[in-house]
Amino acid sequence: MGKGGMSQGGSGEDGVEQNMGAWLLGVNNLKIQPFQLPPLGPHDVRVRMKAVGICGSDVHYLKTLRCAHFVVREPMVIGHECAGIIAEVGTDVKHLVPGDRVALEPGISCWRCSLCKEGRYNLCPEMKFFATPPVHGSLANEVVHPADLCFKLPENVSLEEGAMCEPLSVGVHACRRANIGPETNVLVMGAGPIGLVTMMAARAFGAPRIVIVDVDDYRLSVAKDLGADEVVKVSVDIQDVDQDVAQIQKAMETEVDVSFDCAGFNKTMSTALSATRAGGKVCLVGMGHNEMTVPLTPAAAREVDVIGVFRYKNTWPLCLEFIRSGKINVKPLITHRFGFSQKEVEDAFETSAGGGNAIKVMFNL
Amino acid sequence: MGKGGMSQGGSGEDGVEQNMGAWLLGVNNLKIQPFQLPPLGPHDVRVRMKAVGICGSDVHYLKTLRCAHFVVREPMVIGHECAGIIAEVGTDVKHLVPGDRVALEPGISCWRCSLCKEGRYNLCPEMKFFATPPVHGSLANEVVHPADLCFKLPENVSLEEGAMCEPLSVGVHACRRANIGPETNVLVMGAGPIGLVTMMAARAFGAPRIVIVDVDDYRLSVAKDLGADEVVKVSVDIQDVDQDVAQIQKAMETEVDVSFDCAGFNKTMSTALSATRAGGKVCLVGMGHNEMTVPLTPAAAREVDVIGVFRYKNTWPLCLEFIRSGKINVKPLITHRFGFSQKEVEDAFETSAGGGNAIKVMFNL
Amino acid sequence: MGKGGMSQGGSGEDGVEQNMGAWLLGVNNLKIQPFQLPPLGPHDVRVRMKAVGICGSDVHYLKTLRCAHFVVREPMVIGHECAGIIAEVGTDVKHLVPGDRVALEPGISCWRCSLCKEGRYNLCPEMKFFATPPVHGSLANEVVHPADLCFKLPENVSLEEGAMCEPLSVGVHACRRANIGPETNVLVMGAGPIGLVTMMAARAFGAPRIVIVDVDDYRLSVAKDLGADEVVKVSVDIQDVDQDVAQIQKAMETEVDVSFDCAGFNKTMSTALSATRAGGKVCLVGMGHNEMTVPLTPAAAREVDVIGVFRYKNTWPLCLEFIRSGKINVKPLITHRFGFSQKEVEDAFETSAGGGNAIKVMFNL
Amino acid sequence: MGKGGMSQGGSGEDGVEQNMGAWLLGVNNLKIQPFQLPPLGPHDVRVRMKAVGICGSDVHYLKTLRCAHFVVREPMVIGHECAGIIAEVGTDVKHLVPGDRVALEPGISCWRCSLCKEGRYNLCPEMKFFATPPVHGSLANEVVHPADLCFKLPENVSLEEGAMCEPLSVGVHACRRANIGPETNVLVMGAGPIGLVTMMAARAFGAPRIVIVDVDDYRLSVAKDLGADEVVKVSVDIQDVDQDVAQIQKAMETEVDVSFDCAGFNKTMSTALSATRAGGKVCLVGMGHNEMTVPLTPAAAREVDVIGVFRYKNTWPLCLEFIRSGKINVKPLITHRFGFSQKEVEDAFETSAGGGNAIKVMFNL
Ligand SMILES: NC(=O)c1ccc[n+]([C@@H]2O[C@H](COP(=O)([O-])OP(=O)(O)OC[C@H]3O[C@@H](n4cnc5c(N)ncnc54)[C@H](O)[C@@H]3O)[C@@H](O)[C@H]2O)c1
Ligand SMILES: NC(=O)c1ccc[n+]([C@@H]2O[C@H](COP(=O)([O-])OP(=O)(O)OC[C@H]3O[C@@H](n4cnc5c(N)ncnc54)[C@H](O)[C@@H]3O)[C@@H](O)[C@H]2O)c1
Ligand SMILES: NC(=O)c1ccc[n+]([C@@H]2O[C@H](COP(=O)([O-])OP(=O)(O)OC[C@H]3O[C@@H](n4cnc5c(N)ncnc54)[C@H](O)[C@@H]3O)[C@@H](O)[C@H]2O)c1
Ligand SMILES: NC(=O)c1ccc[n+]([C@@H]2O[C@H](COP(=O)([O-])OP(=O)(O)OC[C@H]3O[C@@H](n4cnc5c(N)ncnc54)[C@H](O)[C@@H]3O)[C@@H](O)[C@H]2O)c1
Ligand SMILES: [Zn+2]
Ligand SMILES: [Zn+2]
Ligand SMILES: [Zn+2]
Ligand SMILES: [Zn+2]
Repeated sequence: MGKGGMSQGGSGEDGVEQNMGAWLLGVNNLKIQPFQLPPLGPHDVRVRMKAVGICGSDVHYLKTLRCAHFVVREPMVIGHECAGIIAEVGTDVKHLVPGDRVALEPGISCWRCSLCKEGRYNLCPEMKFFATPPVHGSLANEVVHPADLCFKLPENVSLEEGAMCEPLSVGVHACRRANIGPETNVLVMGAGPIGLVTMMAARAFGAPRIVIVDVDDYRLSVAKDLGADEVVKVSVDIQDVDQDVAQIQKAMETEVDVSFDCAGFNKTMSTALSATRAGGKVCLVGMGHNEMTVPLTPAAAREVDVIGVFRYKNTWPLCLEFIRSGKINVKPLITHRFGFSQKEVEDAFETSAGGGNAIKVMFNL
Repeated sequence: MGKGGMSQGGSGEDGVEQNMGAWLLGVNNLKIQPFQLPPLGPHDVRVRMKAVGICGSDVHYLKTLRCAHFVVREPMVIGHECAGIIAEVGTDVKHLVPGDRVALEPGISCWRCSLCKEGRYNLCPEMKFFATPPVHGSLANEVVHPADLCFKLPENVSLEEGAMCEPLSVGVHACRRANIGPETNVLVMGAGPIGLVTMMAARAFGAPRIVIVDVDDYRLSVAKDLGADEVVKVSVDIQDVDQDVAQIQKAMETEVDVSFDCAGFNKTMSTALSATRAGGKVCLVGMGHNEMTVPLTPAAAREVDVIGVFRYKNTWPLCLEFIRSGKINVKPLITHRFGFSQKEVEDAFETSAGGGNAIKVMFNL
Repeated sequence: MGKGGMSQGGSGEDGVEQNMGAWLLGVNNLKIQPFQLPPLGPHDVRVRMKAVGICGSDVHYLKTLRCAHFVVREPMVIGHECAGIIAEVGTDVKHLVPGDRVALEPGISCWRCSLCKEGRYNLCPEMKFFATPPVHGSLANEVVHPADLCFKLPENVSLEEGAMCEPLSVGVHACRRANIGPETNVLVMGAGPIGLVTMMAARAFGAPRIVIVDVDDYRLSVAKDLGADEVVKVSVDIQDVDQDVAQIQKAMETEVDVSFDCAGFNKTMSTALSATRAGGKVCLVGMGHNEMTVPLTPAAAREVDVIGVFRYKNTWPLCLEFIRSGKINVKPLITHRFGFSQKEVEDAFETSAGGGNAIKVMFNL
Repeated sequence: MGKGGMSQGGSGEDGVEQNMGAWLLGVNNLKIQPFQLPPLGPHDVRVRMKAVGICGSDVHYLKTLRCAHFVVREPMVIGHECAGIIAEVGTDVKHLVPGDRVALEPGISCWRCSLCKEGRYNLCPEMKFFATPPVHGSLANEVVHPADLCFKLPENVSLEEGAMCEPLSVGVHACRRANIGPETNVLVMGAGPIGLVTMMAARAFGAPRIVIVDVDDYRLSVAKDLGADEVVKVSVDIQDVDQDVAQIQKAMETEVDVSFDCAGFNKTMSTALSATRAGGKVCLVGMGHNEMTVPLTPAAAREVDVIGVFRYKNTWPLCLEFIRSGKINVKPLITHRFGFSQKEVEDAFETSAGGGNAIKVMFNL
């Protein structure tokens, strides 16, 4: 830390430069400003951030100061998809040393509630999660974080790939909840970052055949490049559901065992519910709509269950193993890169908000 | 069989009287007419029907000739909730003898498709189910049925209770799918026959606390008599969902782990989705609406899964055990009884169609 | 705390009397001596112990200074089945106040290892468990413990019943692991404290029929009083396994779905493996033998799985609900009571070590 | 059928040549003799056998007339690992036509017992299984078999590969029962045919790291060629268990999540139980010993469950998909081939009995 020539500074007891973070101050108002870290507890580490990706929710906060039922009421450092290098370790930390490259799991749960104790800590009501108000995020030179949420990168996994464990984790958790394996033929609705990582995770879990659906040709071409067996281009017209289902089933060549709705609109969910075989599952990942109008009863009458997904739990080791072994290659998802200056932060968020050809926008700090 | 003085006759090789069945001939047109049985296969039994209940679907067919996607195109014998006495057994039948009292599981599945082989035979696409067109039902003096779908009644279980295994099976299957046990606090939406059997099944599976909701005071009073911990009277106004949820949660005193929607309307499902705790389940049993407008996304974001229910599988032995042991008492559900004459059949269906105070209408043949 | 007239003293910053604990100093050497408590953390509580039961493992430590692979190398306060009254709460404790009566779950897990995070915290390699060396136990006037491991007693549950949650938890965890429900006919081998609580837990989970086996007439008579459907007296002669199995199956009247071996000897395990139906489970709770000679292959070839049990997790709320609701009555298990003086502690352990008519020996402090 | 020039003949109503089968007449006494087929039922097919493998149980019957608790009391046609070409289809068969190449699942279950109906048909007490007395096998020119147990081969899958679905099914079923996926590091004890297919199945289910153990260098070299990450050579000396466990854990580099004992001896099972991590599973596939002396209690006390495996269910479609997609290559397992003459049949069984370099011996008919 505190190595000369580092422009935005560093921090810590030995540092001379100040830790800077990207603060969300208001709608469309993001400023790089000093960010004071909490003291390092015995089980904590201080991490020098090196790669931070932009998530749809970050953009949503920037544009509206809200996401789902969370509201930004105080200035908040943004960012939560991240990896970095250990700068300092707490007195009781055994498995990490300064210099280790790590990917960070962003949520700190309470371990005292019944959900935590049953192993569903992603649902902890006391969760403290990077950049979910009022908790600060990780788009900063340095953060302090519990050591058990920092996962050492295998040698052949880059820091950017480490940061990609966060979105990939959503796909991995969805695949676990839907019990994907070598007998599960998979439909993915939506080829955004989340649809794409879910597709890749499903493949890594063994899915023999995957069909992915979007309205956007570019995203479908990316999906095909990343390993989709078939892609299906659809409209946004709800009238076309039956026709889309027919097209999907033709592309699948066999039955759809599990569908992931990674868009979350009435139309995508209606399509998923209708396309899935009796006894199959539809996993709702996307959050496009709040209230949904969908043919839920006919699906229930075929025992097509609807499985919810909220973030992830215990996914980092598996994500790193998938990346290390080459079962998943997240690199092609990173379409744009920016440095950590005021101008670049603004540009990066605009690029991400633009959607389309920008899949994952990444900061290199 | 062929006992003198039996008015609608009997049948079989030794019988002199003709087998009669209640034929659905058109909308609101039900006639008792001769019903010729198929030959007795080696694994079949011939059963003298003694108790047949009326189900909502029977009424639906009578009023509209349809139910879900099934359409009555040819005259069809109606009825499927039934019990009777073995009259004759096929050459390979070992576990039954004439005179045995049995409850009949109404669906004959193919045992050759993948769903049958995996143990989800209720989803068999080749299912032949009593009174689901074009398959004849069991409101008749006699039927021929596979012996393995006929379950011997324990001594202390009556034929009417045997017939009640059919609706009870829906509740039992729903409880199995939702994994009800002594740690599951249960909400039931709708106190019709299905809501009531689901409530009783949940109790028998160990649910410590059950709250049941309806718009009808009489049905709620029945629910209370049958063991609900609390009942909540609601309106049909969709605006009241939040207020209903608050009332339900107050009545529950703790969190709702699993909700069963045994009505299946937008309002009941919205209430169930909102009232259930993070990580819980909503089991959709009722089929009030086809398309549903419900807050599915916020529920999915709390990993509240929606579990479908279609009929049942392997439920008769458990239902009989619940009734035998007194864990469930289905007798109070039988509110009306009729004989098997043309006039009584017509009256019975009108009574059932009237709803309200008529919970289960039963024929004694 | 520190109220005058309290004979064995109190402790804490405000206390004037000294906290005393029952120290295991060597083989058969147990002494009441001062026991200094650690400081109270923000999430901790200080509990005035009121009821502490003696477990087989406590006796084992007293007689051999070992249990399984644990060895007592330093003086250690003994005891872990306990309940008491909150004396003081840490600054961040919300759900408890001084005066609350609580049952204590004895194990503090790390919440940082993968087993903890997956919800199997009972297997945590960093577990700190009352009276498992080198961790001190709870047979003392007061202990400091994490608040989330202290469960408030319902009004109608006594402190002694609270202490009984510990052994009962073993039975509850075994039933959960073996997935006991209203369709599971259960065999229990061994009617010691653990066999008896497992039997009661199986009943509370809905087991319709339970047969219990022992070599001791008195224990079988207790089992019968506590609700066993049938008891079977056996010998300890391994030659008798086939005959015992026949007797058990006759007593069961139907198939054995799940067996719990709560003794853990070659003979009991051989009997359990042979008596259980194809596709059933044998749950090994008892630890009578280390190496076992048993017909494992024929059992495996009928897909009879052997399920291990180590202590428990997340069981206190359910135990308290079972006791509160009267589904389980643990009171008859408490056969002997002692006060907390040097003489009584010695007598109590001798009584417990004697086995036979002594089922659970309890201290009232 | 009945095509001229076919040396061992054909059969069927249209055939002129006689159907011949390999009859087990006594110990070491196998004779090719006429084998009359049962009539073709409406759901049956007649299959011209083309590839039949020899299984360890076939050899066992030849040498001892017994296997497990089955005893050959009447002359019986042997063989059950097979594939062939449809010669004739029953009147109700829809999905197959003469000329189709199919792999045969050898067991016909009753579909009337509770195990069948729950989807565990492999445990059916009424199972009729090729070459399990008193049921005839399939080492014959032709057999009659239910059409739903004949699975059409994908174009790129050979008849020999079709026959290999039978042993592969054991591995697939074991992996399903042990819930193998991309997070399961696997130990396999024994590199015989069953150990090797289990290893390949585990890989196809996603196992990231697999260590396999044997006493035989050749078999370990085959295992390495077929994709084992590491192989460990051990002795048969039970004293070496601790040292073997250490070697295995070193080779694994991480924890063993699931072990498959595909030998089934005291030593292999002791090793598997000790090597597996807390909360893991040991799947007992091999049947080397009947009674076993193993450290079962310490394993149970770490909640290492022992999972039994009996044959398979619903495995053919997945096996064919694994072979079709190249995820599994069974061809290298076929080390020896023989024709269907008296001499060759005798030689083939001797070769298989010899073990060692003979892994799978296959007949081409
Ligand atoms: N459940 C969770 O824990 C979780 C976590 C992260 C993201 N999400 C949600 O997942 C969703 C997807 O995230 P993303 O970053 O990929 O967003 P995105 O907007 O980049 O991707 C959505 C994709 O769906 C496509 N789409 C839109 N309408 C469609 C239609 N009618 N049919 C087919 N495709 C259609 C879009 O073209 C786009 O490619 C978002 O709603 C996000 O909030 C959920
Ligand atoms: N899934 C299956 O396999 C299966 C099997 C049998 C029946 N069903 C379905 O279950 C449903 C219930 O069957 P039933 O025979 O009990 O019908 P029912 O009509 O007698 O009962 C429905 C109950 O819901 C109550 N209700 C209506 N609107 C309500 C609201 N807004 N809030 C609360 N309660 C409300 C009614 O007063 C009534 O008591 C039907 O839709 C039926 O088709 C499904
Ligand atoms: N797995 C765990 O987490 C856990 C927790 C607590 C206790 N345990 C173990 O459970 C076992 C039982 O504990 P307990 O306190 O009930 O002990 P206990 O010694 O009081 O009870 C064992 C019972 O088994 C009977 N028994 C002995 N040999 C028998 C035989 N051949 N056939 C039938 N019955 C026989 C005895 O008569 C006695 O009643 C102990 O081995 C203990 O270590 C395990
Ligand atoms: N459960 C089932 O449904 C099922 C089905 C088929 C086969 N099986 C059983 O599986 C077992 C294996 O079958 P197979 O055909 O592969 O037999 P096999 O005899 O060819 O293979 C056993 C392997 O284990 C090795 N081995 C022996 N002792 C060993 C030791 N101490 N340590 C390590 N390796 C050792 C042998 O060298 C051999 O390679 C047999 O017992 C068979 O009966 C079970
Ligand atoms: Zn929590
Ligand atoms: Zn079917
Ligand atoms: Zn831990
Ligand atoms: Zn069967």
